[in-house]
Amino acid sequence: MDALLLLLELMGIFAFAVSGSLLAARKKFDLVGSLLLASLAGLGGGVTRDVMISQGLPVALANPLLLLPVLLAVVLVATRLLHENRLRRTMLAFDAMGLSLFCLTGTVVAFEAGLNPVACALLGLTTAVGGGTLRDVVANEIPQIVVPRGIYALPAMLGAGLTVLFLELGVFNVWFGIGISSLVFTVRMLSLRFGWRIPLSGKQPQAE
Amino acid sequence: MDALLLLLELMGIFAFAVSGSLLAARKKFDLVGSLLLASLAGLGGGVTRDVMISQGLPVALANPLLLLPVLLAVVLVATRLLHENRLRRTMLAFDAMGLSLFCLTGTVVAFEAGLNPVACALLGLTTAVGGGTLRDVVANEIPQIVVPRGIYALPAMLGAGLTVLFLELGVFNVWFGIGISSLVFTVRMLSLRFGWRIPLSGKQPQAE
Amino acid sequence: MDALLLLLELMGIFAFAVSGSLLAARKKFDLVGSLLLASLAGLGGGVTRDVMISQGLPVALANPLLLLPVLLAVVLVATRLLHENRLRRTMLAFDAMGLSLFCLTGTVVAFEAGLNPVACALLGLTTAVGGGTLRDVVANEIPQIVVPRGIYALPAMLGAGLTVLFLELGVFNVWFGIGISSLVFTVRMLSLRFGWRIPLSGKQPQAE
Repeated sequence: MDALLLLLELMGIFAFAVSGSLLAARKKFDLVGSLLLASLAGLGGGVTRDVMISQGLPVALANPLLLLPVLLAVVLVATRLLHENRLRRTMLAFDAMGLSLFCLTGTVVAFEAGLNPVACALLGLTTAVGGGTLRDVVANEIPQIVVPRGIYALPAMLGAGLTVLFLELGVFNVWFGIGISSLVFTVRMLSLRFGWRIPLSGKQPQAE
Repeated sequence: MDALLLLLELMGIFAFAVSGSLLAARKKFDLVGSLLLASLAGLGGGVTRDVMISQGLPVALANPLLLLPVLLAVVLVATRLLHENRLRRTMLAFDAMGLSLFCLTGTVVAFEAGLNPVACALLGLTTAVGGGTLRDVVANEIPQIVVPRGIYALPAMLGAGLTVLFLELGVFNVWFGIGISSLVFTVRMLSLRFGWRIPLSGKQPQAE
Repeated sequence: MDALLLLLELMGIFAFAVSGSLLAARKKFDLVGSLLLASLAGLGGGVTRDVMISQGLPVALANPLLLLPVLLAVVLVATRLLHENRLRRTMLAFDAMGLSLFCLTGTVVAFEAGLNPVACALLGLTTAVGGGTLRDVVANEIPQIVVPRGIYALPAMLGAGLTVLFLELGVFNVWFGIGISSLVFTVRMLSLRFGWRIPLSGKQPQAE
């Protein structure tokens, strides 16, 4: 189970790191900027979670293995093996995969730290959307989470909520995990395909 | 005393959360964006304080009760029960109330964690202005703290400083607390009414 | 050795704090904005490092002495004793000094906390570039680290890497420290003088 969790985490890091490097390429940042955005996107959510759980070193620092997917993403984008134009749809799929994996792994990590269910779900959500938010804030963009294509945070909330529910019920296992991740991934991809929207947060005033 | 502190904290969270949801409405963010900005504004200052004090889980995660004012604020703004145009002055009063409450509660929390007086005052200030700063940074705005209407951080510094002074002297009690918060609130509101300004940080160069 | 480390840290804080106050002056922020940007620039990197190491209070809070260079920087800029136009080149030298000192001190602090070599180097780099990044993000600028003049993060990586190498080999001492800092400083200044660049992170697509 722990090996599986690590594998899912590595896949999620890679997917988000690619999104960071592609953003750096689009904004004409250099290789250091690419490395920074890839690190923030791939590792920032987990580091934020670990800092809040406050149980020693963030796993991204404790286990240097987690840095490899970031380096790989930077190299693939720098050598144009991954390229925005050709692979936009593939990228959105990768990003959705990261989202669906991190809302699961983040929640499990918080649960194993003994947190209450609400905190577990919130930290799962933070893990899923935190990296992308840091990436966008540092790149001086409005974060994807507040102006998403399709729906973004909602599927991650769903995934984190279901994960903590099954964990609390004591029935969570690999198959539930795969099912939840697949569901989150599917909802996210369908929302992109059909342009689903959630309502605005309030009618805006006529003039400022 | 602890129940009173919790009550003040809940009121402060609500006031700042409303400011976050109103900003989301103004920027035409959706409900998730509203929830994000309300959470950052209402809880971000306290979470930053708790992460720095480094004594276990941030209180916003340990006690899910603190999430309720955030949800309430999002609902009130989404249903237009709270609306920017009608309630701008009310809102600035709410925000001033949040500021006056958090500079007090943040300082007390740090003091109870056994920190030195300077650290207590700094964490009180961080609690008071941190949430609004996170809200503005994520919304890609220049934070209110650096381009305020009236004076903003200064009354919070005053409140945090007085709180730690009376705590160190061993004379702090509920009445001192109410007095300090009222003073901070009054100074903040007067500065809005009369457009008080503090000097610029240095004459700017003629050309860049 | 510890007194020396503290001295180097104070010098680094001062250099970065000046950069923060000068940015505040350039953006016409008031004195509170100047204090905020100076604090973020001078102390933000170290606080981020300490929060990640997760061993109690960040040193900037535990030891109020570290706040003095920040106050000094704000006063010097507010009184125009330090001024952008006259002192631009001096400032870049100060900033380079901060970078060369923090990549060293940050790495040593992480090493003394018992972290693995990769984490030590990463935290040294974070200490060196974190403060400036927070300064720029809060001021709503694209961080210098992603659009630097000359090369910026690369010399800091070099310095952090060499520091952890010599620490691991057990041969690190004051002279190695001075040598590494001088090397980082020299590389940074030469890169400014000769406009060194590192490659972009990937060819950008023709149209967005």
